[in-house]
Amino acid sequence: MSTSIASTSDLQHQQERIFAALDGFRIEVPSWGFANTGTRFGKFVQAGAATSIAEKFADAGEVNRLTGAAPTVALHVLWDLPNGTADVETIRGLEAEYGVKAGSINPNLFQSQEYKFGSIANPDAGVRKAALDHLLESVEIGKALGSRDVSLWIADGSNYPGSQSIRRRIEWMEEVLKATHDAMNETQRMLVEYKPFEPAFYHTDIADWGMALHLARVAGPRAKVLVDTGHHYQGTNIEQIVAWLLHTESLGGFHFNDRKYADDDLTLGSIDPYQLFRIFHEIVSTPGETTDNIAYMIDQSHNLKGKMEAMVQSVVTAQELFARAALVDQEALTALQDECRLVEAEELFRSAFWTDVRPMLRAWRKARSLPVEPLQELRTSGYVERISAERGARNQASGGSYA
Amino acid sequence: MSTSIASTSDLQHQQERIFAALDGFRIEVPSWGFANTGTRFGKFVQAGAATSIAEKFADAGEVNRLTGAAPTVALHVLWDLPNGTADVETIRGLEAEYGVKAGSINPNLFQSQEYKFGSIANPDAGVRKAALDHLLESVEIGKALGSRDVSLWIADGSNYPGSQSIRRRIEWMEEVLKATHDAMNETQRMLVEYKPFEPAFYHTDIADWGMALHLARVAGPRAKVLVDTGHHYQGTNIEQIVAWLLHTESLGGFHFNDRKYADDDLTLGSIDPYQLFRIFHEIVSTPGETTDNIAYMIDQSHNLKGKMEAMVQSVVTAQELFARAALVDQEALTALQDECRLVEAEELFRSAFWTDVRPMLRAWRKARSLPVEPLQELRTSGYVERISAERGARNQASGGSYA
Amino acid sequence: MSTSIASTSDLQHQQERIFAALDGFRIEVPSWGFANTGTRFGKFVQAGAATSIAEKFADAGEVNRLTGAAPTVALHVLWDLPNGTADVETIRGLEAEYGVKAGSINPNLFQSQEYKFGSIANPDAGVRKAALDHLLESVEIGKALGSRDVSLWIADGSNYPGSQSIRRRIEWMEEVLKATHDAMNETQRMLVEYKPFEPAFYHTDIADWGMALHLARVAGPRAKVLVDTGHHYQGTNIEQIVAWLLHTESLGGFHFNDRKYADDDLTLGSIDPYQLFRIFHEIVSTPGETTDNIAYMIDQSHNLKGKMEAMVQSVVTAQELFARAALVDQEALTALQDECRLVEAEELFRSAFWTDVRPMLRAWRKARSLPVEPLQELRTSGYVERISAERGARNQASGGSYA
Amino acid sequence: MSTSIASTSDLQHQQERIFAALDGFRIEVPSWGFANTGTRFGKFVQAGAATSIAEKFADAGEVNRLTGAAPTVALHVLWDLPNGTADVETIRGLEAEYGVKAGSINPNLFQSQEYKFGSIANPDAGVRKAALDHLLESVEIGKALGSRDVSLWIADGSNYPGSQSIRRRIEWMEEVLKATHDAMNETQRMLVEYKPFEPAFYHTDIADWGMALHLARVAGPRAKVLVDTGHHYQGTNIEQIVAWLLHTESLGGFHFNDRKYADDDLTLGSIDPYQLFRIFHEIVSTPGETTDNIAYMIDQSHNLKGKMEAMVQSVVTAQELFARAALVDQEALTALQDECRLVEAEELFRSAFWTDVRPMLRAWRKARSLPVEPLQELRTSGYVERISAERGARNQASGGSYA
Repeated sequence: MSTSIASTSDLQHQQERIFAALDGFRIEVPSWGFANTGTRFGKFVQAGAATSIAEKFADAGEVNRLTGAAPTVALHVLWDLPNGTADVETIRGLEAEYGVKAGSINPNLFQSQEYKFGSIANPDAGVRKAALDHLLESVEIGKALGSRDVSLWIADGSNYPGSQSIRRRIEWMEEVLKATHDAMNETQRMLVEYKPFEPAFYHTDIADWGMALHLARVAGPRAKVLVDTGHHYQGTNIEQIVAWLLHTESLGGFHFNDRKYADDDLTLGSIDPYQLFRIFHEIVSTPGETTDNIAYMIDQSHNLKGKMEAMVQSVVTAQELFARAALVDQEALTALQDECRLVEAEELFRSAFWTDVRPMLRAWRKARSLPVEPLQELRTSGYVERISAERGARNQASGGSYA
Repeated sequence: MSTSIASTSDLQHQQERIFAALDGFRIEVPSWGFANTGTRFGKFVQAGAATSIAEKFADAGEVNRLTGAAPTVALHVLWDLPNGTADVETIRGLEAEYGVKAGSINPNLFQSQEYKFGSIANPDAGVRKAALDHLLESVEIGKALGSRDVSLWIADGSNYPGSQSIRRRIEWMEEVLKATHDAMNETQRMLVEYKPFEPAFYHTDIADWGMALHLARVAGPRAKVLVDTGHHYQGTNIEQIVAWLLHTESLGGFHFNDRKYADDDLTLGSIDPYQLFRIFHEIVSTPGETTDNIAYMIDQSHNLKGKMEAMVQSVVTAQELFARAALVDQEALTALQDECRLVEAEELFRSAFWTDVRPMLRAWRKARSLPVEPLQELRTSGYVERISAERGARNQASGGSYA
Repeated sequence: MSTSIASTSDLQHQQERIFAALDGFRIEVPSWGFANTGTRFGKFVQAGAATSIAEKFADAGEVNRLTGAAPTVALHVLWDLPNGTADVETIRGLEAEYGVKAGSINPNLFQSQEYKFGSIANPDAGVRKAALDHLLESVEIGKALGSRDVSLWIADGSNYPGSQSIRRRIEWMEEVLKATHDAMNETQRMLVEYKPFEPAFYHTDIADWGMALHLARVAGPRAKVLVDTGHHYQGTNIEQIVAWLLHTESLGGFHFNDRKYADDDLTLGSIDPYQLFRIFHEIVSTPGETTDNIAYMIDQSHNLKGKMEAMVQSVVTAQELFARAALVDQEALTALQDECRLVEAEELFRSAFWTDVRPMLRAWRKARSLPVEPLQELRTSGYVERISAERGARNQASGGSYA
Repeated sequence: MSTSIASTSDLQHQQERIFAALDGFRIEVPSWGFANTGTRFGKFVQAGAATSIAEKFADAGEVNRLTGAAPTVALHVLWDLPNGTADVETIRGLEAEYGVKAGSINPNLFQSQEYKFGSIANPDAGVRKAALDHLLESVEIGKALGSRDVSLWIADGSNYPGSQSIRRRIEWMEEVLKATHDAMNETQRMLVEYKPFEPAFYHTDIADWGMALHLARVAGPRAKVLVDTGHHYQGTNIEQIVAWLLHTESLGGFHFNDRKYADDDLTLGSIDPYQLFRIFHEIVSTPGETTDNIAYMIDQSHNLKGKMEAMVQSVVTAQELFARAALVDQEALTALQDECRLVEAEELFRSAFWTDVRPMLRAWRKARSLPVEPLQELRTSGYVERISAERGARNQASGGSYA
């Protein structure tokens, strides 16, 4: 197709688009992505894994230094601010020291023994109160840090038919989320995540985007839906859900990762890169949509890949796929779609996917005084060797197993 | 467990519950379930398949005679009322002749060549207008027949990424459904069905219950969601969706069938009977819920089983599973759920499933002057042999194949 | 159907079948099923969970006392015999003390840090040698304990396309399994388990029954395939795989559990009881098949249900579903299948499923001097309260979490 | 990474590899891909669809003229040679006239009414005999045409548990396939295809590669397995199956297509292009493997896309993805895999996927005197307009629908 024969002026035009896209693209890294994690069958301990919030900020700062696209780090209240708002000053110091800001605030309602039968959907009013208290503290942390998003993943559910009332638990969740929303200030948002299964296996209380959207609306106007790309049934058209959330003005953000079957938490774009391209395309093709309202976040679990390597690779892959999506000529595409010229529309669309944008990313990095090859720079920098030496002993001491 | 050792008074109590449940249970049969259908690879023609709307009513009447639970027949506008409202008188005559009433009115927006690229979501305004006209005629048919539900299955979608705009098609659907709702009278309802794929394979415009619910709300207050049990991704907790639809007062009804993998349209309860029990349980366990608002309908495709046999078998299976669900002691279950006594709650719940209700169904049929063994009665009645002789030649003439 | 109206002599006949079936039915419990386990997001610690091999034997003995159907306990080499064959005497003592025998021997090739990139399929010959050594020790343990089956679950695989060579790893596995088979004596068997994903997410080296069968054949004549019911893609017809393994004389046994989506390790029959009925039916309908060659084993993870309760419930459910499968009249079914009388064949088949066998199980238990209601007996016995008091402090000390 | 910064000599090297890969790449088009097909809900008739075997050859010839990579056309015995071997002379004439050869011979055992309950697995010996006769005739056609492969898709199965004996049907299939193999000459091969469901929904007699491999081995040494990429459960690692078939020397060929959920028969590479890249890579990375033994065939159903456009697009996409797979540096990849340098191995691997090979394909086409832009050439050639005018009336007369 003629669209694939790029003339010089086309190339110029492509470069402008890509530079503009990359200048506006930011993706948040999770503090827990630098710590040791694993599967239920055990975890493979990495010598360089972060063992403290300071080390997590150090690692996040390095990822941002290498990529220029990861200026914030998602915080997990239980693990990163165990003393709640009392830890805010520490975080502020780390922000200053490592040049990355605190991003979304992530409460934890799944780990404590009291949440065995649920947190905000627990039949026990006392447990629900404890959960609400933790959410309210998370809101206060967000205020203190000037962080916009409180990001809720509710792991509640049940494992066996009949063992819990699906219906009554909905009402309990509505109450708690409404109370949480009431406590937020005008600049804060609540993001409601959904997931079809795991760790609950028969029913998960917030299982799909329809349930998350309902709860967000009941909670209040600044509650939005969070899409974790790994939290869908096989075959689900995720970009369609994104289109509906954009249409209903309720898309809050993403937890990006990839998977082959379930919530595998692999590096984004590693299994089905075309899907992530299509997701980005839904956003860039929505008129008037700025990505300012959409929180792009990484949520992955790197059990085998090196923590730092995997994170840099993820940021770079996200940039590449976002740049490809930005290349689609929306006007031409709309015209072909309206005339139902299917093959031509498809070829125009995926011609952008097939364009090798890597040279332009290198050009952009050079123009922005960033390392031209972030992964290579990471390897030659000796950073991983250094943190492995520093943290090795501490990591050796941990190291989990199944039994 | 003690719940499974039924004393005489328990049995008395069980019988009362089951009789009450069965007296209130009605399920609608589809007119197209009596005609020859198949897969895309061909259809296996049955000599006794209905070849006219009169024969469909005759068959539906026979199913109702045998079961006492199928007093209405769903009509398909294109196939059953090809002349639109002009055919209403014919239908009235058939109602009188065969003792079954017209049930839901089903427009057809997938068969005509003009719908190749969609009907109510087609980029061409002219095609959308044609689709709306057909919907409005269906509304008029509903009024003329005194039928409550206009039941919409929208097959629209696309087969290839990029070939259509998912987002813009949403707006077009909203317009058409709103206009259709405006035309209904106060006693009519619109049921919006969803389906994840087939016949569109990349994206189906109304893919899940969240999309159907949004469209129903945009359309108007008498638009509700229709759940086809075969229209879900593998692993979906369908009873949970039912619970949410009940919670949001937007459950309109069901198309029942079963499946092993995709939309296989097998007889209900044939693959996973426990799932259908759980779906019924969500309804009977909702306080104040009457099944009057919920349209129970069969939607299956019997390519191998005898048409009449399959339909009678389906009605009987639905009755049995509904009766089992009615046996669950709600008060006791709620108490166990609230205390998180999981195994006891589960055992109480499934003890109802394991109860062999067939003797009580026979008792109920006897008490209601119905054939005690409907399938056996069908076989000994000679009905299938009679219609096979009458219709055989006409069916021989048809008989489809793939190419 | 007439098949469902049981006359007195029918009932007599049913009882005989069921008693015979139950007398021959044995199911093995896993030692790890009594210890605390969880999901990757944490585990909910139970006060009464077993904290030593002695406690596991005690619990297994109690399950057998309550059910009379669980005379063996599967051992996990790494956790139960950390000193290898040196621990055999300890096991012998426990067998004598608690009245249950050691069952299958389960090597562990997934937990040690050296297996990060695989065990028997690791590109490093040294790691493969270590894995083989562990397998050979497991074989010796089996000999020493007089245990028939060494049961292999190989967790090897990779997480990312291109990161490992699928093809070359096959050859490495063949070598190790052949060497292991060579070390077995004539009374030992090797069971090769398969699993499509988790903990490896892109490719699992032994992903399906076809791969397991190939490896078993390469290993030697006493290697058979082990079917874990949770280790299949959604929609897989597991009973068909069982039929093929029976046909090729390569079915070694089962790890039973149930699931809604992935390898959820729920109690067997809790999500889809009809499926387990069909699996049992494939076995009981195979002429000349005795269940002596087929190892029935439970492999579940009870994170929320009480450990003891869940295990007793599982054994009882397995008995009930096996008894139902034994009720199918094979001769009559074959005749209907041969004449393709589909609905009649199906009704005959599932009439057995719908038969409430619980009264007959109680009768059988009474006749065999077993507790008539095992779950109730467990509750009234005070066993769980006793072990909770004894083991509580030790369990408090553990208690895992994600980070 | 350095692998992505191509120097001039790198580019030279890449071009050599790609030219060699493309020179050796052939893909077969199916005769039925030019005729009208649809879904079970109807088909959208195309004016230019082929209505005779001559028109199918004409279209196939045009696809080959445009691409230079599709020199053979798969024939469907029932539709293309309704008179069996008597039609061979006609085919020979068409081969000469249109410059494309007859490819694989495809018997049809699913369309005739007698196959309602199965063909080679039917309980009725008479039906099995009829199926065998059709297979034997197909073998004779293959001999007469000098065609290597008889390609078997067996649609047999059942829709309901208990309605057929899975086990006994295996034996019947073994008999028929062995007899068919016996009739082949030394240059012929039998390809055994598998499919998990559709048109049978409960069990399909040849459901996965393990079953197909068993049957191929029972049939004889020249029976191989045929992989249809759309015939797998969601999440299946297809390239792993390909690796195992290569390892066991039993890979016969492919039916290529793509899908989002089930057997959607979309154009190859349209939904998950990375997967097809990985499949090709398994083949090109196997030492000593020539593609001569592997039949690459397209099997798609173009209901919405233009028939000719879709076929040309498919051939071109296959070439592009095959060329990308050929770019992977096997030696370097093996070294990284052996050292478990996961991220580097993955980046090397997918760097080939991200390389924009389209300019090199244009260069290759120019060097081989082929149209540089096949799709564009198709549009400007007026071919579709011409056949639409010629065949329009005939196609108007057909046009299927659901009822």
